[in-house]
Amino acid sequence: MLSKAERTKQMIVEQSAQVFNRKGYSGTSMSDIMEATGLAKGGIYGNFRDKDELAAAAFDHTYQKVLLAIRARVLAEKTAQCKLLAIFRFYHNYTVNPDFPGGCPVLNTGVETDDQIPFLKEKAAAAMQEMLQSLQRIIQKGIDTGEFNTGLDAKLEAALIYSVIEGGIMMSKLSDQPGILNKLLKHLKKEVEERFVK
Amino acid sequence: MLSKAERTKQMIVEQSAQVFNRKGYSGTSMSDIMEATGLAKGGIYGNFRDKDELAAAAFDHTYQKVLLAIRARVLAEKTAQCKLLAIFRFYHNYTVNPDFPGGCPVLNTGVETDDQIPFLKEKAAAAMQEMLQSLQRIIQKGIDTGEFNTGLDAKLEAALIYSVIEGGIMMSKLSDQPGILNKLLKHLKKEVEERFVK
Repeated sequence: MLSKAERTKQMIVEQSAQVFNRKGYSGTSMSDIMEATGLAKGGIYGNFRDKDELAAAAFDHTYQKVLLAIRARVLAEKTAQCKLLAIFRFYHNYTVNPDFPGGCPVLNTGVETDDQIPFLKEKAAAAMQEMLQSLQRIIQKGIDTGEFNTGLDAKLEAALIYSVIEGGIMMSKLSDQPGILNKLLKHLKKEVEERFVK
Repeated sequence: MLSKAERTKQMIVEQSAQVFNRKGYSGTSMSDIMEATGLAKGGIYGNFRDKDELAAAAFDHTYQKVLLAIRARVLAEKTAQCKLLAIFRFYHNYTVNPDFPGGCPVLNTGVETDDQIPFLKEKAAAAMQEMLQSLQRIIQKGIDTGEFNTGLDAKLEAALIYSVIEGGIMMSKLSDQPGILNKLLKHLKKEVEERFVK
């Protein structure tokens, strides 16, 4: 069981993670974090050295939440096709999913930090690689087991799927139209069914 | 010819536009703008009411530069296929193109502002719509003139192309690998040649 101190630290991460994912690293102020956590400055700095340490923990928290939710769905499926479709279902209505406020942490942190803030860029880049490699592994396994066409380039297909999902999240959030992402996911499903499966 | 005052105003927009596109709205401070323009605070506030007015002008500047560069390439081509391929060529190595530092302004501003800063979100959303509609118009014209297959859904194909380009820019910038975007563009070209053209 977590001690009271550990619970406080956990609460700070959870509450500030939502703020960081919505407002970005630069847009999040200490008063935003104080407001989200209900703590005074001393209560936050007693647990985290500075804004950077908290921002790093907040990114890990938001990203792990997405990763674990996807992983649970993927592990529940047997075939490569079903695993990919489970990922697409996870992202259905993602931009209005109350469990993941603020959108995709990799996209948000990645786009903000790619020209600056190296310690966060590194985290977002590693998360992106992990996502791409997971997709690639699923597709490659589908090819290796004879479920998918041997002509597929697993690395390219993984990048295509990820670009459509991330680009779709950007478009849906910016236009406040969850349907744009959903329509793209429907297309990805069709691609897997018609072009991937033997 | 521009007056000296107009030239100064133009210089402030051009120089600060690069900073805003790299560091984002929240990440750009008045001292960043003073450093980029070589002007004192008074010289900047003499031309722009506040940071918001300058940020809006900076977004317009960066976006118009991308738009005009694409438009020139599109207008130079006759067929829908050649117009689409010209757009893909524009984005080749985009993330390391010194003419467009900081990446895509629609992606940068869109992702930063989609949960906040409504006046900039509105601008990024309008720019995205303009890009999507241009793509859709080219594809629809290709269908109408008999160049492209009638089975194509121009709106969906436009969203697909745009999501792959924007998602690809994000991936290439975040991983410092321009080749990811280039590989995706090569796939888009193949799609147009094999699936669009009759």
